[in-house]
Amino acid sequence: MTQYCHIDQPFTLETGETLPSLTIAYHTFGTLSPNKDNVIWVMHGLTANSDVADWWPHTVEKGKFLDPEKYFVICANVLGSCYGTTGPSSINPATGRPWCGDFPKVTIRDMVKAHRLLARELGITRIHEMIGVSLGGFQAIEWMVEDPGIAENVMFCATDASCSPWLAAFNKSMYMAIATDPSYGEPRLDAGRAGLATARSIALISYRGPFAYNMSQRDNDAQDDPFFHRVQTYQEYQGVKLCNRFDVYSYVRICESADSHNVGRGRGGIRKALERINATTLVIGISSDILFPPACLKELADSIPGSTLELMESDFAHDGFLIEHEKLNVIMQNWRLTR
Amino acid sequence: MTQYCHIDQPFTLETGETLPSLTIAYHTFGTLSPNKDNVIWVMHGLTANSDVADWWPHTVEKGKFLDPEKYFVICANVLGSCYGTTGPSSINPATGRPWCGDFPKVTIRDMVKAHRLLARELGITRIHEMIGVSLGGFQAIEWMVEDPGIAENVMFCATDASCSPWLAAFNKSMYMAIATDPSYGEPRLDAGRAGLATARSIALISYRGPFAYNMSQRDNDAQDDPFFHRVQTYQEYQGVKLCNRFDVYSYVRICESADSHNVGRGRGGIRKALERINATTLVIGISSDILFPPACLKELADSIPGSTLELMESDFAHDGFLIEHEKLNVIMQNWRLTR
Repeated sequence: MTQYCHIDQPFTLETGETLPSLTIAYHTFGTLSPNKDNVIWVMHGLTANSDVADWWPHTVEKGKFLDPEKYFVICANVLGSCYGTTGPSSINPATGRPWCGDFPKVTIRDMVKAHRLLARELGITRIHEMIGVSLGGFQAIEWMVEDPGIAENVMFCATDASCSPWLAAFNKSMYMAIATDPSYGEPRLDAGRAGLATARSIALISYRGPFAYNMSQRDNDAQDDPFFHRVQTYQEYQGVKLCNRFDVYSYVRICESADSHNVGRGRGGIRKALERINATTLVIGISSDILFPPACLKELADSIPGSTLELMESDFAHDGFLIEHEKLNVIMQNWRLTR
Repeated sequence: MTQYCHIDQPFTLETGETLPSLTIAYHTFGTLSPNKDNVIWVMHGLTANSDVADWWPHTVEKGKFLDPEKYFVICANVLGSCYGTTGPSSINPATGRPWCGDFPKVTIRDMVKAHRLLARELGITRIHEMIGVSLGGFQAIEWMVEDPGIAENVMFCATDASCSPWLAAFNKSMYMAIATDPSYGEPRLDAGRAGLATARSIALISYRGPFAYNMSQRDNDAQDDPFFHRVQTYQEYQGVKLCNRFDVYSYVRICESADSHNVGRGRGGIRKALERINATTLVIGISSDILFPPACLKELADSIPGSTLELMESDFAHDGFLIEHEKLNVIMQNWRLTR
């Protein structure tokens, strides 16, 4: 069940702009131990929400690495999202209508600042294990650099210490597709749907990679229409599906937050920033991930003192972290036994 | 200098539609030997043209694998293009205006049919070496399957025997971006520019891959604006650049021709079709190519009787075939010595 934390104070963003107040939507699973030493804080990806049990199948289960009988699992919806935390679909008190495109740009640092306020409100000063995957990894790395004492153990998977030119090129293609939609900019939450659908189609490419596509979307050889590919229907369908659960303004703001990610900014560079991390750290790369190739995860691990690097074999590319929950469970449980 | 071959007869397409006549633009380099045994036929990629010396630097040079002192090199612009061969920018005799979106869909088989007409017009019945790279490879493979006796030696690089679901997903994202542009469909050649620019941005992603982007587009650490990435300016610039030399209708028709590529269609499947090829065959994959990953090239080579597979090491992904002309030259010259 979604819970809400309302903070009735202005929230200043990294850009200097201010939100009049802040609501953070979050989920918890399990029970906080009396001495508060069983907190696992999970940070979610681009279009996900605070309901980990929903978007990360077979992880919030007895015997799995987010076992709610052992741990108190928290996940908060990111700033700028449309799943309950303040974002473009929230009401702008100045107008009484949703912010839409007027919602200010947010950075990963702003998202972490909001997470930290929630932790404070919940009385959590120490996290047993922090888990960040993809955009959630951006937040987790940023949080650990900003506040190195917060977590005892951290796991970063399929993520990076900054937004690579490669990721920024994907993002730009999505912005271009969205800007081409003539309804983008109109002050309604169902504006820009065609642009958003194209953006989703582009994003899926980055999540799946060649092997997953060619395994799962191969056409029947008997196909007569020379131009038909069922994957093209699939791309269109996935675009519509996202439009039915997300709005274009939240999507753009969260992608821009990814653009903003650079733990080295104002801290003397990435390596120097990462050297601050003082926790038992596991870095997991996915063998076929083209968005965050294994070499990037190796570089990340190489820069974090005493960290462990694991390469998870998978044909599912970036989406492997969602699909390969069994492999991930084995990696996580082994890590816990050996650390 | 561009040469033109006009064929004043109806040209029937694979779909059954008919073009009233056909013009084929082509380039030749070097001199045809008296017994016509020195022909190298090169087939170009998506947005290239018949001027190989222009789009493939340092190949049409003395001592290089397209040495015009030794060989008679031919390259014809593909059907549907805007570089001189009949396409959407040609005049539709029925209206006296450019075809634009009314130009019919063409397949790779149609492109090959046009190449074969040009060969007949030039009196060429035997090709010493056929070279097809990327979309040019689609044409070369198709030609060799359709007419196995045409070439003595063939080289296929960074290509495939059919349009993979992966490539079709990229194409679909581009079609979605283009369809979102409200001016797409208007009967003028500068329609749909915003959509075309986005399509180019998407395509570049597929050509470059993560390593090339991250090598060449890394930002200065001193960058203060948290949202700035110079690669995003670059993507936009490349989009505009394509719009200044291409039209959206040609772009869509050629991408659709890629969708149509499947040498197995109506021939009992891909393996059976490829078994027809009866030439000394070299297949070259590029190590970092994400559009046509090395595994696809291996599968292609495995299906062509007696072919040789070469893996070219490069960080430049699909664009490696354009950039690594020196490596390619070594591979080609060695192949010629050993075959």
